[in-house]
Amino acid sequence: MRDGVVGTDGAGHQVSGGPGGARVEAFSDAIIAIAATLLVIELAVPAAGADVGHALREEVPAFLTYAVSFLTILIFWVNHHALFGLIRQVDRPLLFLNGLVLLGISFISYPTATLGRALQGGVHDRAAAVFYAAVLCGTASAFTGIWCYLRARPHLLREAARGGVRGALRRSLAGPTAYAIAIVVGAVHAAAGLGVCALVAAYFTLAPRGLGRGGAA
Amino acid sequence: MRDGVVGTDGAGHQVSGGPGGARVEAFSDAIIAIAATLLVIELAVPAAGADVGHALREEVPAFLTYAVSFLTILIFWVNHHALFGLIRQVDRPLLFLNGLVLLGISFISYPTATLGRALQGGVHDRAAAVFYAAVLCGTASAFTGIWCYLRARPHLLREAARGGVRGALRRSLAGPTAYAIAIVVGAVHAAAGLGVCALVAAYFTLAPRGLGRGGAA
Amino acid sequence: MRDGVVGTDGAGHQVSGGPGGARVEAFSDAIIAIAATLLVIELAVPAAGADVGHALREEVPAFLTYAVSFLTILIFWVNHHALFGLIRQVDRPLLFLNGLVLLGISFISYPTATLGRALQGGVHDRAAAVFYAAVLCGTASAFTGIWCYLRARPHLLREAARGGVRGALRRSLAGPTAYAIAIVVGAVHAAAGLGVCALVAAYFTLAPRGLGRGGAA
Amino acid sequence: MRDGVVGTDGAGHQVSGGPGGARVEAFSDAIIAIAATLLVIELAVPAAGADVGHALREEVPAFLTYAVSFLTILIFWVNHHALFGLIRQVDRPLLFLNGLVLLGISFISYPTATLGRALQGGVHDRAAAVFYAAVLCGTASAFTGIWCYLRARPHLLREAARGGVRGALRRSLAGPTAYAIAIVVGAVHAAAGLGVCALVAAYFTLAPRGLGRGGAA
Repeated sequence: MRDGVVGTDGAGHQVSGGPGGARVEAFSDAIIAIAATLLVIELAVPAAGADVGHALREEVPAFLTYAVSFLTILIFWVNHHALFGLIRQVDRPLLFLNGLVLLGISFISYPTATLGRALQGGVHDRAAAVFYAAVLCGTASAFTGIWCYLRARPHLLREAARGGVRGALRRSLAGPTAYAIAIVVGAVHAAAGLGVCALVAAYFTLAPRGLGRGGAA
Repeated sequence: MRDGVVGTDGAGHQVSGGPGGARVEAFSDAIIAIAATLLVIELAVPAAGADVGHALREEVPAFLTYAVSFLTILIFWVNHHALFGLIRQVDRPLLFLNGLVLLGISFISYPTATLGRALQGGVHDRAAAVFYAAVLCGTASAFTGIWCYLRARPHLLREAARGGVRGALRRSLAGPTAYAIAIVVGAVHAAAGLGVCALVAAYFTLAPRGLGRGGAA
Repeated sequence: MRDGVVGTDGAGHQVSGGPGGARVEAFSDAIIAIAATLLVIELAVPAAGADVGHALREEVPAFLTYAVSFLTILIFWVNHHALFGLIRQVDRPLLFLNGLVLLGISFISYPTATLGRALQGGVHDRAAAVFYAAVLCGTASAFTGIWCYLRARPHLLREAARGGVRGALRRSLAGPTAYAIAIVVGAVHAAAGLGVCALVAAYFTLAPRGLGRGGAA
Repeated sequence: MRDGVVGTDGAGHQVSGGPGGARVEAFSDAIIAIAATLLVIELAVPAAGADVGHALREEVPAFLTYAVSFLTILIFWVNHHALFGLIRQVDRPLLFLNGLVLLGISFISYPTATLGRALQGGVHDRAAAVFYAAVLCGTASAFTGIWCYLRARPHLLREAARGGVRGALRRSLAGPTAYAIAIVVGAVHAAAGLGVCALVAAYFTLAPRGLGRGGAA
């Protein structure tokens, strides 16, 4: 029943008596699954008596934003899973950094709805695209922050994973970098900003080596 | 704690170091459970002071659509479970195809709400019924896509399951076919389109052999 | 990874190759947890600039209905758990009956919101109280239906549980009976109908023997 | 499959045949994960065609309240996990007290939305801050209630945990005390009340010893 790890590490820091890797991962999985599924709630349902075909065509930008966010959250999940597969022990700062990742992922449905609506009007408000890419960038950066922390405290990793942490950290910079580009592009053209995020999702879904290795985040 | 399978398959393709079958199934189960439970949110609650009895009678078409979608998602769950019970190893394209199935299932609450409202007005907008059946058809087709992929890469299946993949693929065509019929019927008469989807759900719930064998999807 | 039970029972009926008891229970647990947590979404948040103290006092009937429903769903969970603890094997009709229970539990947030709002206006619409108690009655009856089915097919139960099924079925009639009374009382006085449901929840929470034995359902 | 504990304790009280510690913890984890993730739904999405940058600036108080609540729920989760790690056996009153904790945590999204909106208008309604801190205070008090109950019935705890229950109870008073201060501060100045709750969350996230020991609750 208990998978937590309690003790004091070599450097004398107290290691949290809180939940171990498996329990943190199960809780994180639940939050990520809910975040992905909740995205649909923000889509506007055509009113009773409305011309449904017309209303659905109007919603197409919202559907696209929804699909990009859903796929992005699934990629975050795969990367989160791969990351926690390497972890032997969870201490307090790691728990906090993971909390930031979960805060970011849980929040994604809000900028998704904001961008989906902004792309429907004639205005195509670029602030919505910048906001959307910034939330993804922040979430990916929190992932990178976990890798930074793990590089400094390799005893939290499984023996076999310690050699690869430097490479994983370097690869994990791809996510924040790509979303920083999406911020800049979105500041110029809202739909193009979403397009960059869609390309990032497609790349990490289809590229032969990025997935499952902390690539997108 | 780790159930992932890492390695290179015989054909030289890299097999993802991502989550194994059990972990993917648990995550999928969570998404499917949430998708089924979220359906209720889109039902319109009678306003304070309204004539509740009258308002509830108005909502009957929305209740029926809700019940059909709930049952359909449960059937998808049973089929998803039976499918993953046969899988030995998860690679990247399978992860992606499963993501499409989850995207479809998560999305169902939107066409459900759209159709539920469209059936309440006097118009009975047929676009709503076509949209509803099309989303179910797409989701069932993604299931069939998984079977197609597994037929081409039987090493992902358990030894004992490899002989049955051809039959499972053939049976899994029943879902897309039935929902294609629902699209055509819905294009003629909205409520009849929902009726076809209800019959599909009833058949796969009650038929003695379809359930648990990928039949509805 | 697999906990399903496949085979043919003594009577020659095909036993579903679908999910076994543990997997059905985990999926049901997820749906019940989500149903309980979603209840809060239907509470009306005071608008920006409103007199919050006044708005909250107006919401008190909705808070009470919320608390009764939350507690009732927790009791359903305890009973569901106790029930599945006795089950050795899941066949198709049992899966379908369990689906009805889950449909009822998932739906509870809708009559909860309806009754919460109806009790806020001056009208205290009795149809809302009848509807609320009827949904609870239907859900509890689906539980009783499971016990009826298990009495007829005791091979689905664990050896040690077969002797107690007759008593469990009798006790499980308490739920539908109590909620039938709540329907009648609610048809006379809406708030009193909610009061009966609150008493039922309090009884099954506090009574020394009912809990964990299928009593409330 | 079964982790429940059935029996009669030394004092002759009947111990529930309901779910054991692991099962109660898994169910509680699910509710807590959903409660954290649902918080985002209450944030107001800028309307189509609105000035998104302006609308987002208006929402900043709601974002801050959201972040404080998300972090607070994560801390409740860590404490809940640490608590159930010490429990050997679950009886009926413990199940009921845990239900109160879950009711409180599930409800947090409502005062969060109320306070987030109240801080947006020019009024800064103090009732919203008092309500917010009161719900957190009540939830933390329910945690303390569990410790009180466990002190009186140490046989429910694991052998090794029995010596520490007095200290854990004392530490668990920090939560209700801090939130009582937040109530008083909020009654004077709404934003300052939220500030106290933010400090509590920051303290239990960052303090070297509080976390994982029932400190915040």
